[in-house]
Amino acid sequence: MKNKVRALYIGKFQPFHKGHLECIKKILNEVDELIIAVGSAQYSHTLENPFTAGERMDMIRLALEENSIDAKKFWIVAIPDVGTHSIWVAHLKSLCPSFSIVYTNNSLVKILFEENGFKVREIPLFDRKKFSATEVRRRIISNEPWEELVPPSVAKFIKDIKGDQRLRELFKKDIV
Amino acid sequence: MKNKVRALYIGKFQPFHKGHLECIKKILNEVDELIIAVGSAQYSHTLENPFTAGERMDMIRLALEENSIDAKKFWIVAIPDVGTHSIWVAHLKSLCPSFSIVYTNNSLVKILFEENGFKVREIPLFDRKKFSATEVRRRIISNEPWEELVPPSVAKFIKDIKGDQRLRELFKKDIV
Amino acid sequence: MKNKVRALYIGKFQPFHKGHLECIKKILNEVDELIIAVGSAQYSHTLENPFTAGERMDMIRLALEENSIDAKKFWIVAIPDVGTHSIWVAHLKSLCPSFSIVYTNNSLVKILFEENGFKVREIPLFDRKKFSATEVRRRIISNEPWEELVPPSVAKFIKDIKGDQRLRELFKKDIV
Amino acid sequence: MKNKVRALYIGKFQPFHKGHLECIKKILNEVDELIIAVGSAQYSHTLENPFTAGERMDMIRLALEENSIDAKKFWIVAIPDVGTHSIWVAHLKSLCPSFSIVYTNNSLVKILFEENGFKVREIPLFDRKKFSATEVRRRIISNEPWEELVPPSVAKFIKDIKGDQRLRELFKKDIV
Amino acid sequence: MKNKVRALYIGKFQPFHKGHLECIKKILNEVDELIIAVGSAQYSHTLENPFTAGERMDMIRLALEENSIDAKKFWIVAIPDVGTHSIWVAHLKSLCPSFSIVYTNNSLVKILFEENGFKVREIPLFDRKKFSATEVRRRIISNEPWEELVPPSVAKFIKDIKGDQRLRELFKKDIV
Amino acid sequence: MKNKVRALYIGKFQPFHKGHLECIKKILNEVDELIIAVGSAQYSHTLENPFTAGERMDMIRLALEENSIDAKKFWIVAIPDVGTHSIWVAHLKSLCPSFSIVYTNNSLVKILFEENGFKVREIPLFDRKKFSATEVRRRIISNEPWEELVPPSVAKFIKDIKGDQRLRELFKKDIV
Repeated sequence: MKNKVRALYIGKFQPFHKGHLECIKKILNEVDELIIAVGSAQYSHTLENPFTAGERMDMIRLALEENSIDAKKFWIVAIPDVGTHSIWVAHLKSLCPSFSIVYTNNSLVKILFEENGFKVREIPLFDRKKFSATEVRRRIISNEPWEELVPPSVAKFIKDIKGDQRLRELFKKDIV
Repeated sequence: MKNKVRALYIGKFQPFHKGHLECIKKILNEVDELIIAVGSAQYSHTLENPFTAGERMDMIRLALEENSIDAKKFWIVAIPDVGTHSIWVAHLKSLCPSFSIVYTNNSLVKILFEENGFKVREIPLFDRKKFSATEVRRRIISNEPWEELVPPSVAKFIKDIKGDQRLRELFKKDIV
Repeated sequence: MKNKVRALYIGKFQPFHKGHLECIKKILNEVDELIIAVGSAQYSHTLENPFTAGERMDMIRLALEENSIDAKKFWIVAIPDVGTHSIWVAHLKSLCPSFSIVYTNNSLVKILFEENGFKVREIPLFDRKKFSATEVRRRIISNEPWEELVPPSVAKFIKDIKGDQRLRELFKKDIV
Repeated sequence: MKNKVRALYIGKFQPFHKGHLECIKKILNEVDELIIAVGSAQYSHTLENPFTAGERMDMIRLALEENSIDAKKFWIVAIPDVGTHSIWVAHLKSLCPSFSIVYTNNSLVKILFEENGFKVREIPLFDRKKFSATEVRRRIISNEPWEELVPPSVAKFIKDIKGDQRLRELFKKDIV
Repeated sequence: MKNKVRALYIGKFQPFHKGHLECIKKILNEVDELIIAVGSAQYSHTLENPFTAGERMDMIRLALEENSIDAKKFWIVAIPDVGTHSIWVAHLKSLCPSFSIVYTNNSLVKILFEENGFKVREIPLFDRKKFSATEVRRRIISNEPWEELVPPSVAKFIKDIKGDQRLRELFKKDIV
Repeated sequence: MKNKVRALYIGKFQPFHKGHLECIKKILNEVDELIIAVGSAQYSHTLENPFTAGERMDMIRLALEENSIDAKKFWIVAIPDVGTHSIWVAHLKSLCPSFSIVYTNNSLVKILFEENGFKVREIPLFDRKKFSATEVRRRIISNEPWEELVPPSVAKFIKDIKGDQRLRELFKKDIV
């Protein structure tokens, strides 16, 4: 383990899309192993967070297998929010295998890890406007084609669990 | 118990109004017993949630007694929110006597119960624009007549505990 | 409400037995209405706390109906533990309709309510050695006759939900 | 202790500014000892709540020492929010030395303490538009001069811990 | 996914030993994929639970790699305890990819999953007296040879993170 | 602040006794300022933890004033337990002004702070057998003279709040 470089990449993956996939591919060119941390793990069944942590873990593994990414190169872990930023890094560390580098473009995450002595690297962008989870959810709700934004295996998974239907029903709020 | 049909009706009842009362009467025509679940039980003393769970329980029982609804036909239970939708049904079930049917018009509640194998029925509407808790609170805050929207016993109760005054003070936020 | 005297009686009711029933009957001779608070509501599926709050609520209502106690005279509410004794009374008050008297023989409960300005009364004893929830659970586990210690409707309920079997399985801990 | 009058003054102090200092000076003319309660203690690293409770405690003590206020006259305590208003006073009391008077201009705090039998007094105002924590944070973010709004020792402390820089980085949200 | 059979195996793995490894090998002969759930994930630094969830995840993966078990065949997930048994299955499900079979010899786990409609299978035993985490911890504390009870990679890992030393220091409780 | 050396001393102080006082005096010979952290702050009204955090804070300040220890030299802060050892140091740090040294004889506290990069020093002993909080509580319960073990101002305070009586009542558990 001493010689392996292990990094952390944290996201909400609501849902996992092609932009996430590209990031992971690029990061895996720079490090030996990647911990993919599914953040805000306790939230689901809302417009912003429609999928459970478990469903998101299923999506990520399907997409990485579909892209022939070696399962030995990544971990998928769920990290519930704790509400208190000052303890979040200690909380996350206790739930993850050890790592030395953090990839993020979020300034809060950057500040918190840097205050705890971690190296933080920027994630290379990948057509962010188009490939965003917000856009995927917007398209699902308004019945526009959304499948092209996510890996094919993820599109299939979302339909299998009726996740698209769940999101559209949540949007209605009141049935009648 | 085997032959009795017991249903669940969940609401926030901030405060309990005539619309709620009509719903309960109609549901009691369809089932043997009704569990009236006071949701978001931990919240009180806010503009959206002025009353404690206990105060709301008092209101409901006063109104049902006033309307000669047999106390053997209903239960009043308090259900605190848990923040995590995926465990909410298990949480609610553990705090309620057993039931088989759920009455709701809220699509989140509907999805969560259906994913847990419950039958969900729509609640018949009752002049919803007029009889809403939001409208009652709005009228109390702006000193308009609100008493006609709630059962007389509830209006008296709210005044007895100075609940109308509490709501108006909360609205001011800063005293000076 | 002003003239009604409402009291609180808190217990764990794991399970509800004939001693509890006698207490409630006696208290109802002294006050107008009784709130029966199911304490440690979040615990279940342990040797000390085999039943969920909901199951215990079902037991209590069955027993009181069986004994023709008027449903208008009592409330059954679930109170989760909070872990912090100094806030427990405030927590309990927020989840109960208002009350002015507390019945208890537990010195912690007595101290906490007295420090919060409540009148506390002792519960008249009723052959405590025999009628204790600990004894009921012990007999269930060791396959001795336990049914005589609880009201008939409660014995039937426990068997219907296979609660006796659950307790015996919990006792085994490891299956093989 | 019996003869000493001890009061409570609760604020978020994000950050501690000259308005807070003037309030404390005036209150200390009216009472013997003051508990300065740092509310919402668990929050930090957000735009509304940039500083940890510990950092805010440091600020307050520096400012009071700088103004030669006798350390025997005040306490500085951290009070995390609990989310449930109905238990907040009991929670706060358990974390503070005893007190009999509360100073506040916030109507929620006033209602909660009055419902718990405390005397509540208004805080004398001190050019509130200018001296507000919101204004200090706004100026830091937009690189306007903010130092004049806080005691010199607090300005120095914020710079020493790079708190101004932290706030500006939080504002950016996404780095690229 | 439809045709793959995925099972769950839950343990505390304090630490992961050869008995655990044999179980996993046997289960993987019966199912396609296995979720290895690290229970009581929030506990560490105690005599019963010396290692963090993250450290236990590292141990498990090292041992499985060492034994050439295909990383595509297993998941390692951390499951914090929730304190309330009646919601534990819902909680665990939300943090895991979907599964249909549960392997356990613990009767509480068996009851909870069966009450939630899961198939539960017994785990084949493997010299349980000798290969138990309690025995490993006992030997570490009393400076007896413990390395033979765990896979070589786990023994090395524990020494690398000074986990053996941590356990012996925890045992002392008070230094002087 | 840069040149001041600030240390942390954590205890439960149930109650504060002469041994604690001697420790504090000795530590104050070695450092400029001391943070006295009242641990397990949320617990009270039990045999092990009879006093609230607020009551313990009152005791400590009374004793230090009685011994003419300059109020500028110490802080008294309340630290609730979090249940998860791996986040405890981050939690404590967020609730305390900054510090660089920790005084403790407890090996868990020592390990946790050392793993977080703090210097840990042993506390000089002071007739530990005699001056222990366990012994003070034991004597109060069995009506033996306990006052000599605590500073006079603390003995007076405990009697004023009827803390000795509370402890004896808690010991009885059931009143009749």
